[in-house]
Amino acid sequence: MRFGVIAKGSGMIQPNMATMLCFITTDAAIDSKLLQKALSKVVATSFNMISIDGDMSTNDMVVVMANGAAGNAPIVEGSEDYAKFLEALDKLCKELAQEIADDGEGATKFLTVHVTGTKTFADAKTIAMSVAKSPLVKTAFFGADPNWGRVICAVGYAGVPMNHKDVVVKFGDIPVYAHGVGAEYDAEALAKVMEQHDITISIDMGQGEEEATVWTCDFSYEYVKINGEYHT
Amino acid sequence: MRFGVIAKGSGMIQPNMATMLCFITTDAAIDSKLLQKALSKVVATSFNMISIDGDMSTNDMVVVMANGAAGNAPIVEGSEDYAKFLEALDKLCKELAQEIADDGEGATKFLTVHVTGTKTFADAKTIAMSVAKSPLVKTAFFGADPNWGRVICAVGYAGVPMNHKDVVVKFGDIPVYAHGVGAEYDAEALAKVMEQHDITISIDMGQGEEEATVWTCDFSYEYVKINGEYHT
Repeated sequence: MRFGVIAKGSGMIQPNMATMLCFITTDAAIDSKLLQKALSKVVATSFNMISIDGDMSTNDMVVVMANGAAGNAPIVEGSEDYAKFLEALDKLCKELAQEIADDGEGATKFLTVHVTGTKTFADAKTIAMSVAKSPLVKTAFFGADPNWGRVICAVGYAGVPMNHKDVVVKFGDIPVYAHGVGAEYDAEALAKVMEQHDITISIDMGQGEEEATVWTCDFSYEYVKINGEYHT
Repeated sequence: MRFGVIAKGSGMIQPNMATMLCFITTDAAIDSKLLQKALSKVVATSFNMISIDGDMSTNDMVVVMANGAAGNAPIVEGSEDYAKFLEALDKLCKELAQEIADDGEGATKFLTVHVTGTKTFADAKTIAMSVAKSPLVKTAFFGADPNWGRVICAVGYAGVPMNHKDVVVKFGDIPVYAHGVGAEYDAEALAKVMEQHDITISIDMGQGEEEATVWTCDFSYEYVKINGEYHT
């Protein structure tokens, strides 16, 4: 069983808007209703978990088509084959979603915002999206500035009830904020993390067992150039 | 009866966050409960209607203090004096709010987003904020690009039910989008509007009698510089 995939990232395809397009094909035998169900499931934790600039395009789309050429017995819900299919589709969609965030307009950094310890997935996603969409967070990472104040600020205004004394924030593996105060950290080691292209912002909310991951990029001069000067 | 006012706009006061502070004084005799009521009323259509970059500060504040030195009879609710007091306070707060938006970090344009024709004030505010916070709209105005596609896109994803055929968008006095299609406009006249420092984006939703106005600024290289490079 194989997959084919074509995705167009978040550059400009027309002067008026950014678009994300993704076409997935597979030779698996699987009926269209179950295929759509599988796609909807994995999209919730892949393509719906990225943000370039918070601007939702009018024509983002992900489609999947299956032709059955693999010759497998049709995949049915609840089977081991379906579990495998779902796992493969999920892996594929996450990889593509991450590549699209990494390829964001003007991006110089690929940021993974991993929120843990919430009561629900929705809470974790709301917090992660709030951090991922903050222009102050995105410009700080562009400037390689370990500005945890901006991260905590975006966590705070996300709208999920919280106690700042329960929260721990890490950049890479290094705690920068813990339980109400800035953590003591090795400034040189942290500077090395901030210079990397791939940086994970981990936020533990200390209020539950759920989690969510959002992928985004930084906000650069090039983003302003691409979107402010392309028409001149 | 006089007012005194001190406000600090949206530059950086501490490296970690932007803040807005506003202290208003008046010599009017008015009790604190009614004064707070008056302030809350006018703040809803002045300071709560501005956005620089969508990042809410941890310590925005507006306070008003009255010492009664004007020697007027204490202002009571429902009186003509209260109406006058409210009008003066409202005018003052709107002016200050506009100045703060105009003074936004790196701003080169002062943008007024005026949404009319909605069923509620809340709907109009939601739509106006969606447009005012859109990085794509803000970079387009930085580039003096009359990109109505980005405005309509932000109207669409604001979440208020709409029919695009009811909507009319103007930049300054010039219709750029009307009832589902781009309007025919004099490109030279529109270019003149886009070159101005103060630009009004008018959006008529065609679904009711309510309206709201949000003030914001554009998104420039300087914004990225101020927020990405200040620490180096």
